[in-house]
Order: sequence, then structure tokens, then C-alpha cells
Amino acid sequence: SVAAPVSTGQVALGVIPGDGIGPEVTAEALKVLEAAAPADLKFAQTRYDLGAERYLRTAEVLPDSVLEEIRKQDVLLLGAVGGKPNDPNLPPGILERGLLLKLRFELDHYVNLRPSRIYPGAVSPLSDEVLAKGEVDFVVVREGTEGPYTGNGGALRVGTPAEVATEVSVNTAYGVERVIRDAFERARKRPRKKLTLVHKTNVLVHAGQVWWRLFQEVAAEYPDVTTDYSHIDAVMIYLTTDPQRFDVIVTDNLFGDIVTDLAAAISGGIGLAASGNVNPDRTAPSMFEPVHGSAPDIAGQLIADPTAAILSGALLLDHLGHPEAAAKIEAAVLADLEARVPGQQRRTPEVGDAIAARVAG
Amino acid sequence: SVAAPVSTGQVALGVIPGDGIGPEVTAEALKVLEAAAPADLKFAQTRYDLGAERYLRTAEVLPDSVLEEIRKQDVLLLGAVGGKPNDPNLPPGILERGLLLKLRFELDHYVNLRPSRIYPGAVSPLSDEVLAKGEVDFVVVREGTEGPYTGNGGALRVGTPAEVATEVSVNTAYGVERVIRDAFERARKRPRKKLTLVHKTNVLVHAGQVWWRLFQEVAAEYPDVTTDYSHIDAVMIYLTTDPQRFDVIVTDNLFGDIVTDLAAAISGGIGLAASGNVNPDRTAPSMFEPVHGSAPDIAGQLIADPTAAILSGALLLDHLGHPEAAAKIEAAVLADLEARVPGQQRRTPEVGDAIAARVAG
Ligand SMILES: CC(C)[C@H](C(=O)O)[C@@H](O)C(=O)O
Ligand SMILES: CC(C)[C@H](C(=O)O)[C@@H](O)C(=O)O
Repeated sequence: SVAAPVSTGQVALGVIPGDGIGPEVTAEALKVLEAAAPADLKFAQTRYDLGAERYLRTAEVLPDSVLEEIRKQDVLLLGAVGGKPNDPNLPPGILERGLLLKLRFELDHYVNLRPSRIYPGAVSPLSDEVLAKGEVDFVVVREGTEGPYTGNGGALRVGTPAEVATEVSVNTAYGVERVIRDAFERARKRPRKKLTLVHKTNVLVHAGQVWWRLFQEVAAEYPDVTTDYSHIDAVMIYLTTDPQRFDVIVTDNLFGDIVTDLAAAISGGIGLAASGNVNPDRTAPSMFEPVHGSAPDIAGQLIADPTAAILSGALLLDHLGHPEAAAKIEAAVLADLEARVPGQQRRTPEVGDAIAARVAG
Repeated sequence: SVAAPVSTGQVALGVIPGDGIGPEVTAEALKVLEAAAPADLKFAQTRYDLGAERYLRTAEVLPDSVLEEIRKQDVLLLGAVGGKPNDPNLPPGILERGLLLKLRFELDHYVNLRPSRIYPGAVSPLSDEVLAKGEVDFVVVREGTEGPYTGNGGALRVGTPAEVATEVSVNTAYGVERVIRDAFERARKRPRKKLTLVHKTNVLVHAGQVWWRLFQEVAAEYPDVTTDYSHIDAVMIYLTTDPQRFDVIVTDNLFGDIVTDLAAAISGGIGLAASGNVNPDRTAPSMFEPVHGSAPDIAGQLIADPTAAILSGALLLDHLGHPEAAAKIEAAVLADLEARVPGQQRRTPEVGDAIAARVAG
């Protein structure tokens, strides 16, 4: 499922710059994307004005008509959405559920892809001892369309001392098998060919059983991939004391949310973390975005680091069947990071220009 | 609810040494407990043979009759249970659900208490920069009797491509309020008086709503306690880059499981982490145990570090209303850790003896 068909000619690129630093980093991602794209690949951009600002202006989160337009795009690039913290006019969760998760579910983004590397110069919070064990380079394949994220559940006697609220994690063989299969494909393509299932099978037995069974079943088709299993709580220990052990991790929606933030933290912050919300079957556009938020506190100053957005562009190119172009961006980012002078503050467009120049040159 | 009544005279102490290194570390915990207990406090010990070994021998996990005896104890000390990894005769989850979780649910251990400190000499995987920001000293109050741990849910068409498996997280106002209240009490007694609610309210809206509401409601009764809120994913970043920000954390059963393992990891490993499964209403005995497992690979060699078990004894004394005796154990452990010679390997009883001597002296 990950042997990407090669897109050439005109590709319809939907761009959702979003709020805060979103538009700032998106501009740089687009700059680098254009510089890296092969000559026969042209992006026809359409911008969608979505996010906190639009919501506050119009009370609209994601109108159906906009969703239907977005659905027709070939691929999507998102900056970041989100308003000021604790804005009383912006109910918590409204953008998350009405926009971000809605897109994942509507566009069947069942593979949420988050690579983790400790880049040169990145300030990891881990000790030198831990880092000295070797290179950290793994990718998390997080299920994106079911699990505890479905919104299933409800509440009874809300607001009373007798309130009962449930959250239902829904796990289907259909949904679990396809993401596991995708993860095996990705593991097979990597030098170490190792895949770790992360769950909590000893407690969440119903869900654990279907994840465990399908992991074993699909594993039988990938004898070249080494497999292992870790409980989510043990992963906390491994990621902080021995992150080198991981190559590809496959896990459910909520565990994936948690693991990827820890992964981003240990690799030196979400400032560099890129992600893809991928529909490997290509029945709808996949979406690429930096993991960081809209950072309203620094918006407008052009001081945000666009590297995560730029790396999301690399994932986008890879998804379009252009791994060489993706590799060019990664190499340029690497070179840029290596060349950074500690303490020197560059403006957002300067970083984009520098990386675009490396890509072009 | 945490203003412990002072137990004196004869206290019925149920001891579950368990498997692997469990009995080894429990012996040392008992040694130190006896040394630290005030003169007017006597422990009448009853041992319960429970764990993997008993299960493999008798196919019994926790017979009802044993549970009823345990229920009559005043307080419980557990070593660790668990057999060899991947033992085909020991179905995964059987001890977890049949013994550990069963005790938490049956004895209404709604407060799962896990203090986190970076002790002197502990090898934290965090960088010097992060550690230099200040002392790390917080406690997690994890809900222990509901949430995703209830076993609610089920599966349909198991083993087929049409399988659907659900896990239901059950959250009641009753269960949420009491643990939040306990956490506020604990926060109020600490110098910083700060309580952080950890959840994922932006996605798990039904459960999030009851947690959020009761947190605000109870907070109004504790104006002296500073409160804040963090999503579970953000906690991954905070615990690795700025653990000093936390004082008391209150969270649900599953998030608590995850957060406490990360907390143990950053404080230098679960080798030092103690925990209490507390019934603050004292309708059944509370249970104290090290967070680490039975470590079958090193069992029988008397090389396990009993410090976590010994610190669990301190929590036990505190629960019995003897904070000075608990503080004595903590101080002795601290002194022992400070006196440790790097590279020098002491045997399990030597560590226990050394700490007991400090407690006595
Ligand atoms: C914003 C939020 C709904 C989202 C999630 O929980 O998936 C975010 O944390 C992420 O990881 O993309
Ligand atoms: C053994 C397991 C059931 C347990 C849990 O998940 O609570 C353990 O991880 C813990 O944290 O005490």
C-alpha cells in the first residue's frame, strides 16, 4: 500500500495555512516544495481559509461545501490552526473535532505518520549517555480513524452527582488490519526492518485481542520484518532510556497521540516534527502538517522555525511518488541544521530561503 | 480524606511477596518497616501466596476465600507478581486482571499514589540542562477504580475480518470527584500547593467534561491550591523538558498508568519508584508496592535493589498515620543513596540492613 504511484503533471494542492504562525511556516514549506519538485510536477494551489480566525469571524468551522472542495484536491498542506489559549469565544475542542479530526475521519486518513529523528543541533532533553547509544531514527504509524477518537460514548445525568460519562474505543478488524499492513510495508523498506506493536493488551483485552491477532497474522506475510510488542507504559521507559531500539512503531489513535509527542520531545522538540495524515488507498487527499501548533504568542513576528512545515513538504513529495525530491529536502534541512550558529536568530523567510537554496543548488 | 487516623497497637499486615524478586525485596521492606515503626505499633503479619508461581502450580489466581481474608487485613504490602516472559502456561493479562486489578477494584483503591523524585545518585535519562532547572518532586494521584480499566466493552465476530472490539471508559461523578478531592487534599499539604489535571478533554469530550467540571467545582473549595490543566500529550513534553513544573497531578486510570511510568523513567528508573493503592475511606485495606515487576531474569541472586519496596513501606506508615516514621525511612533511603559508591554492587539484604541501621540509629 505504500508503493506510491508517481504523480506528474498538474497536482491539485489544497493549502490550509491556518492561524498564528501557520501561514508563516506554510509560505516557507511551499517555497521549498516548489524548489524541490521535479520539473514535470506542477502544483495548482487552492487556499482554504479555515481555523480559529475564520471561526471567530463567521462561526464556521468546516462548511460542507468547503469539505467537498477539499475532497477533490490531490494532496493537502496544513500550517497550524488554533486561537489564543482560553479565548472564551473559542470553545475548547471545537477546532480539534470540527476541523482536524473531521478531516482525518472524512478523508479516511487511517495512517498518521510521524517520523522521529534527532537532528544535528537539536536540543534533546535526553542525557549524553542515552544519546551516545546510537542514532535515533524511527517512525510512528498511528491509526487515525478509530480507537478512542471516534467520539462514541456519551453522558447521563450531566452536571449532577450521578453523572456517568463513557468513552468508547472502537476497533475494527478492517481498521486495524489496514494500518498494521501499512506499517509492515514501511518497516520492510527500512534498513532495520523492525516493527513494534504498542498497546495495553493486558488491560484493554477486547481491543488488545484484535490488535494482537492481526499483528501476528500480517506478520506471517512479512517474514523479513522483525516484530516485537511493548505495553504503552513500558514505551515511556524505552523512549527515554533507549529510543534507539525503535524502528517502526504501529499503534492505536490515542496511544499514538501520546507516543508521538514523547517522540517529538526527545528528538528536540515539536519544532522539527513533521507529520502526514495519509490515506494510503488514495480515495481522498492525504494531508501533511507540522506537529506544532499555531503559537499565537509569537505569531506575526516572523520568528517561527518553519523546519517542521518544510519537512512535512518532504513527506508530501514522498507520498506523491517522488522520494528523491523528498530526500533532497531532508538533506537540505540537515545541512541547514548543521550550519546553524547557536544563538543566531534567523527570520522565518530566511530559514525557508536558505533551505530552498540548498535544495535548488 | 487524607488526614490519616493514627493506628497504634496491633496492626494486621497482609504480605503478598509474589514472584521473582518480589519476596527478596519484600523481606527488606519488612525489615525496615519494623525498624521504623513507633514503639506502640506492632505488625501482625499474614502471608499470602499469590502470583505466577501459585497460578502455575494450582491454576488459582485469587480464590474468593483468600480475597475475603485479605479484606480483613488493616494494610497490605506487595512485592511483585509475574512469571517468565512469554510463558505459554501463563496467559497474558491473567495476573494483571485476576490479581492486581482485581485487588484495586475489590478493595476500592481509588487513589493510586505515585511520588516521583530524582534521588541523589539516581541516573536520570534527562540532560544536565533539564535537571539543572531545579528539584523534581511531584506526586501522581491516579484514579484506580474506573476509566478504561473497568473491562467494560466486548467484541463481536471475534477472529473474523468483520470483528469489532470496543473498550468502554466509564467515568462517574462519584468516582471522579472523590479522587480529585483526595488530590486537592494532598496538594494543600505540600509547600507549592499546586494541582494539575491531566486528561485529553479536547478529544475525549464525554469523560473530559465530567473530569473538567468536578475539577473546577472542587477547586472552588481549595482557593489556596493553584490549579492548571494539561493534555496528556503535552505532559509528554513537559515531563521530559520541564518536570519541575509539576507538584501534584491528578488523572484517570489509563493516563495515570502512562504518566507514572514516564515519571519513574525520568527520575532514574522504576528501581526506586514506590506506590500506594489507597482506599482513603478505609473501608478496605490499602496496598503498598514497588512499581517494578518481578524481574525473573535476576531472581534468586539477591542482587535486586529493594529501595522501591522499602519506600513503599514509608507510604504504608504514612497511611497508618505515622508520617514521622515514614520520614525516617525516606531520610535513611536518601542517606543510603548518597553514600552509594558507583560501581559497588551490594546484595539485596545488605541494602536493607544498611537502611534499617540508619532508621534505627
Ligand atoms: C489537536 C488534537 C486533536 C490532535 C490529536 O489528539 O490527535 C493533536 O494532538 C495531534 O496529535 O495531532
Ligand atoms: C500490571 C498492570 C495491570 C498495571 C496497570 O496497568 O495499572 C501496571 O502497569 C501498573 O501501573 O501498576
